[in-house]
Amino acid sequence: MTFDPDTSNPWIAKAVELRDIFARDAVERDQLGGRPVEQIRLLKQSGLLTIVIPKEFGGAGEPYSTALKIGREFAKVDGSIGHIYGYHFSALIAARLNSDEPRSADLLRRSAAGDWFWGNTGNSFSKTLFGRKDGEWTIVNGFKPFASGSHVADYLSTSWEDEVSGERKFAAIPADREGITILDDWDGIGQTQTGSGKVAYKDVRIHDSELVRGWVDASLPIRTIGPLQQQSVLLNVFIGTAQGALLAARDYTINSSRPWMYSGVERHIDDPWIKRQYGELWVKTRAATVLADRAAAALDHAIARGKALTEQERGEAAVAVAAANVLAGDVALEVTTEIFEVMGARSAVRKYGFDRFWRNARIHTLHNPAEYKTRTVGTWYLTGAYPEPGVFR
Amino acid sequence: MTFDPDTSNPWIAKAVELRDIFARDAVERDQLGGRPVEQIRLLKQSGLLTIVIPKEFGGAGEPYSTALKIGREFAKVDGSIGHIYGYHFSALIAARLNSDEPRSADLLRRSAAGDWFWGNTGNSFSKTLFGRKDGEWTIVNGFKPFASGSHVADYLSTSWEDEVSGERKFAAIPADREGITILDDWDGIGQTQTGSGKVAYKDVRIHDSELVRGWVDASLPIRTIGPLQQQSVLLNVFIGTAQGALLAARDYTINSSRPWMYSGVERHIDDPWIKRQYGELWVKTRAATVLADRAAAALDHAIARGKALTEQERGEAAVAVAAANVLAGDVALEVTTEIFEVMGARSAVRKYGFDRFWRNARIHTLHNPAEYKTRTVGTWYLTGAYPEPGVFR
Amino acid sequence: MTFDPDTSNPWIAKAVELRDIFARDAVERDQLGGRPVEQIRLLKQSGLLTIVIPKEFGGAGEPYSTALKIGREFAKVDGSIGHIYGYHFSALIAARLNSDEPRSADLLRRSAAGDWFWGNTGNSFSKTLFGRKDGEWTIVNGFKPFASGSHVADYLSTSWEDEVSGERKFAAIPADREGITILDDWDGIGQTQTGSGKVAYKDVRIHDSELVRGWVDASLPIRTIGPLQQQSVLLNVFIGTAQGALLAARDYTINSSRPWMYSGVERHIDDPWIKRQYGELWVKTRAATVLADRAAAALDHAIARGKALTEQERGEAAVAVAAANVLAGDVALEVTTEIFEVMGARSAVRKYGFDRFWRNARIHTLHNPAEYKTRTVGTWYLTGAYPEPGVFR
Amino acid sequence: MTFDPDTSNPWIAKAVELRDIFARDAVERDQLGGRPVEQIRLLKQSGLLTIVIPKEFGGAGEPYSTALKIGREFAKVDGSIGHIYGYHFSALIAARLNSDEPRSADLLRRSAAGDWFWGNTGNSFSKTLFGRKDGEWTIVNGFKPFASGSHVADYLSTSWEDEVSGERKFAAIPADREGITILDDWDGIGQTQTGSGKVAYKDVRIHDSELVRGWVDASLPIRTIGPLQQQSVLLNVFIGTAQGALLAARDYTINSSRPWMYSGVERHIDDPWIKRQYGELWVKTRAATVLADRAAAALDHAIARGKALTEQERGEAAVAVAAANVLAGDVALEVTTEIFEVMGARSAVRKYGFDRFWRNARIHTLHNPAEYKTRTVGTWYLTGAYPEPGVFR
Repeated sequence: MTFDPDTSNPWIAKAVELRDIFARDAVERDQLGGRPVEQIRLLKQSGLLTIVIPKEFGGAGEPYSTALKIGREFAKVDGSIGHIYGYHFSALIAARLNSDEPRSADLLRRSAAGDWFWGNTGNSFSKTLFGRKDGEWTIVNGFKPFASGSHVADYLSTSWEDEVSGERKFAAIPADREGITILDDWDGIGQTQTGSGKVAYKDVRIHDSELVRGWVDASLPIRTIGPLQQQSVLLNVFIGTAQGALLAARDYTINSSRPWMYSGVERHIDDPWIKRQYGELWVKTRAATVLADRAAAALDHAIARGKALTEQERGEAAVAVAAANVLAGDVALEVTTEIFEVMGARSAVRKYGFDRFWRNARIHTLHNPAEYKTRTVGTWYLTGAYPEPGVFR
Repeated sequence: MTFDPDTSNPWIAKAVELRDIFARDAVERDQLGGRPVEQIRLLKQSGLLTIVIPKEFGGAGEPYSTALKIGREFAKVDGSIGHIYGYHFSALIAARLNSDEPRSADLLRRSAAGDWFWGNTGNSFSKTLFGRKDGEWTIVNGFKPFASGSHVADYLSTSWEDEVSGERKFAAIPADREGITILDDWDGIGQTQTGSGKVAYKDVRIHDSELVRGWVDASLPIRTIGPLQQQSVLLNVFIGTAQGALLAARDYTINSSRPWMYSGVERHIDDPWIKRQYGELWVKTRAATVLADRAAAALDHAIARGKALTEQERGEAAVAVAAANVLAGDVALEVTTEIFEVMGARSAVRKYGFDRFWRNARIHTLHNPAEYKTRTVGTWYLTGAYPEPGVFR
Repeated sequence: MTFDPDTSNPWIAKAVELRDIFARDAVERDQLGGRPVEQIRLLKQSGLLTIVIPKEFGGAGEPYSTALKIGREFAKVDGSIGHIYGYHFSALIAARLNSDEPRSADLLRRSAAGDWFWGNTGNSFSKTLFGRKDGEWTIVNGFKPFASGSHVADYLSTSWEDEVSGERKFAAIPADREGITILDDWDGIGQTQTGSGKVAYKDVRIHDSELVRGWVDASLPIRTIGPLQQQSVLLNVFIGTAQGALLAARDYTINSSRPWMYSGVERHIDDPWIKRQYGELWVKTRAATVLADRAAAALDHAIARGKALTEQERGEAAVAVAAANVLAGDVALEVTTEIFEVMGARSAVRKYGFDRFWRNARIHTLHNPAEYKTRTVGTWYLTGAYPEPGVFR
Repeated sequence: MTFDPDTSNPWIAKAVELRDIFARDAVERDQLGGRPVEQIRLLKQSGLLTIVIPKEFGGAGEPYSTALKIGREFAKVDGSIGHIYGYHFSALIAARLNSDEPRSADLLRRSAAGDWFWGNTGNSFSKTLFGRKDGEWTIVNGFKPFASGSHVADYLSTSWEDEVSGERKFAAIPADREGITILDDWDGIGQTQTGSGKVAYKDVRIHDSELVRGWVDASLPIRTIGPLQQQSVLLNVFIGTAQGALLAARDYTINSSRPWMYSGVERHIDDPWIKRQYGELWVKTRAATVLADRAAAALDHAIARGKALTEQERGEAAVAVAAANVLAGDVALEVTTEIFEVMGARSAVRKYGFDRFWRNARIHTLHNPAEYKTRTVGTWYLTGAYPEPGVFR
């Protein structure tokens, strides 16, 4: 019941090793922002970037939940890595779901072979990037905000609106394609190494063979699984953040906190207040974790169902993900604020970096307001209606 | 993900049938208080009173979690039945854990054969009942408070202090033993049909052969499982109460609530406020339910381990039960208060009886303060120390 | 800073005396429901029914806040009396604001002389009562729900829709007018002696001279003060309920609660948990009280301004009342639930009646959802727009 | 009822002007940390550093609450200035309370004449600074942590333990005294310009004439007013932080936030969610403000009573301050976290600096745990016992 992951899975064991390496300079890197280059190098070296690619295409064939749990593990010490690691799989899961198409199969194969790291400029609801057809090519101009992972990416998933038809197009292209500028202008209060700034496109040429069918042109429920996958990344970053904060706080409380002058106890941890606070925060974090695990299982199940996935099954997974997301976000915010109470005044200095947990939780929970996720769940409970597939749901 | 139990287990299917029967007059019986005689008759008829007794002794050999889930199911409509049904198994589980002793085996066999309903006058920390040895007999005088289920019991588990040695003794005796008076003076604000009043003992004679070893003289961890079992009953009553309240509120909201005059919507359930409130309450109830399920599994596991149960395993189960208990209690109180907000002013009348959910949750959560359960969890998280087995933990 | 009222005002001193008398059988009367006949008799005897009537008409000329504080005081022990006492003044304040009209002046004079107790069948948004003009008379048929105080009233304020024009009419009539039946069918889970059931009208004849102009046909801001006055009654009942619950709990905790078995303290009040819980509840109750006092002052000010009252001044009072109402309701619900935690299991029995505080708070907070009051405040903060005068605001 | 201060007091009007100047680079300065040199210069120029010094000694004779309100006003945009401005008056209030002693009178006179800014190295419970008597001098060695304001101070209040007797001594000395090194090593996550780092003392010589009697050697209640004054500074920084955050959030929400894609509204502020959230946060901030105002008045009253102050009056003020402190801290933490929800994802970037409100609230609330303040209030409510004067209370 502690927050230790199941290291009987060798990929998770490997991730735990990396997590401990990432932890060494996580505080410093949080303050620096910029690009986690060395961390991406280690991820490539570890083989963790290909785990959900089917074995036939050169991957490890792990269920998607393994990636979520690894992202959660990284987020215990570094929310940025947790986030871009999870999002990295967006394009790969989409390709895997379409792996009977040669183009998708090819992408999986090449991604596995090249140990590509994927960045995301496919942010789905910002209309700032436009394409113009020119024979077998599309000429793309404009920019995309919130392009997480693009600053360290080998490959980008991207989307734009066709200038004429307004239709949304999707593609997978090398990050070094001519005309693309990663502005690396991310200035978030947290998640500082996600590179979630803008990517500019200046006369970028994308060939028809690079186009992929996106989840929005869904005719089958499985085609709408993308938002659930993305929301799952987020919620597991919340979980990792809450767990990581609580673990770091415990260490500090045990090793460095002094009992309050009026407490009458010799060890801070013997103060009934401290016991209760940790008990409360642990119970909440535990509950959120269990809901997150259930949601991950629901998503695995949905992905495994593939083209046979029904609307109802998709809906059940969507509700599970939304519910887990709401609770995980709430708990992450509460834990990351409350830990300071039990650590004490001397813990709140920049050198320890405990505030990064709150900053990470705070910024990361904003991309899909809890209010709307909660209404979605409420609507389903009241009427049985599943969330209509769309952005963030 | 709804609150429907798994009726593929026929005992649970049977319990669902009974639940719906109990529901018919649950509001009326809540107001009357007194004895749920007819409900006990139906329970006997259904076979549900013997399910956790091993098959070899005439029971169904179900894991204890089946009883917990059935208690939860009853508590959706009637917290009193949920409670006394769960507590009924206390003596039986204790006997089952000692079923290699002839006395225990005999008790199980006779209980199964006679469809006994067990009441509890073994309340463990009230020192108001005393025994004096007289040859092979003990003469017992005094009273026991909080004697839940005694008012409809065939058999009673009981405990007292020896007048001379102060040692605590335990026995199982027929409820109609001469000298025993069930005062049936329960006056709780909720759980009105549990009969949790006093039982008086006036020169009650108990034979040595009726003595049983109680969990407090524990040399093996498995002997200390009783409090976890009892706490599990309580927490599943909280879960059932929260679920039942939320289900009843939904029905009322859909069928009877009017939209607020300034809402601008035609149906109350289309008010964003109502969606959010139900979403919030559902997420919390769901999280508590999942923790409760985990705790029930931990308890099943511990019981299955029997005499091989280690202190660590016992401790893990104890933490799981405490954590689930804290969350379930909190959620039950919140849900049972908040449902009125979303049902509206006209719902708060006695004829609907929606307030019984709060009254049941409120009184039932008091028997083990959340503060101390939470500290127990916090201590474990901070130090790794498992709760020392004792009353309520 | 305790919750003792300022008894330098002799009317408040008198109210404190009555409060202590009402307290004697408040628990019993809560369970009985029905009519607080003796309490109304004492109120008449005390002179407290006429205090806000101007001296020139035979009253004491007290500001309205005196009535609110007295209602609050009664609600400490008996929410029903607190409520109907406060509402009693609705018609009188309306008349006072129009006291330059002979009809209003006459009503004030007669009410003072006769020590009338007023009931309310003017519930403003239920369209269930209709009138038909017949010369100088109107023939009224139908019913009114939530007719608080009508069961012990001498005089009733009432309203109906004209069958032809749909226009809303208001009148003040004797409660024993032929054709009126006080059904006294109130079945609330709390506030059990408010008589908030239905009043039936069967061919009730109301003369033109009994008509009064209601606040809804407002041309001046002061004409819209009614809802603020009514909302103030409610919020002060919440305050009184919270204070009364906290006072009763303190008495019980000090005199009857036992320390928890694992607390290690000899007196329950020495448990850090108990100190903290009372500290928390007191701080919240205190904050709500201070906001309520401010709102009462704002209302006094608005009433004193009379016909000179501007929309802005009316708006400021409306926001103050809404804000105080939201906080008071929240605090009352929290306090009335939480007190049981610190009193312990043995406190939750019907003979003590501590649950009436929660039942009173719960039902009474439903008549104007906190959600909408809160939105009203938020809209004002965001836009500067005052709540549009209307039902409940 | 908005958060505008009463500018009919010219000092407050002056403070509002300065606040708006401080606001211009508050975000930048928060990131830089270091010394607010220009701001101190403006404070000197404005005359605001001497306002609570009695007129006879060259000050403005304002009540202490004026300083608290000014600190609150500064904290709306810059918590650091709010804090050190408030603390600046600690030594001056102490001197004022002893102004019948020539030494105190002299200090007041010279401070007024020289427009001194005071820093604090008198942190009362850290035993890291020790003095050794040498004739009329004391030789002081060691260091003091949390020396807020010392980095921009003209004069320092300081305290140390006598090496021999262990007795605590207090003095007021020039900040440029030989041997004193302001390490300016403050690394807090918030309140970054308070200079709350260490001050080192190396053979610092302090003459007997510089000694002052500290509040801890109290024989009169008025001598124990120091901690209440300091706690009041903190709580008004919390209030200012909450108000400032809510004001800044409103501006952003109105001018920059976009409606949520599924909201169906054209302006973000028309979303019921946004209305409710602002309503809730405003009500809480308002309640905390009103309690803070009451506490400030209680403190003014206590100071005005001077040597006539009774233990009971001191106790009432202490409870008022503790209660206001608890609520203000809670509200500040909630508001500063929640504003992001209603502003949206794009608001959470460093250039806006909205996160400084949370960081300021979070670090500043740690110096006196809410748990203990709350217990103090609870103890008083339960037993009538006032907090025993001491550090922080």
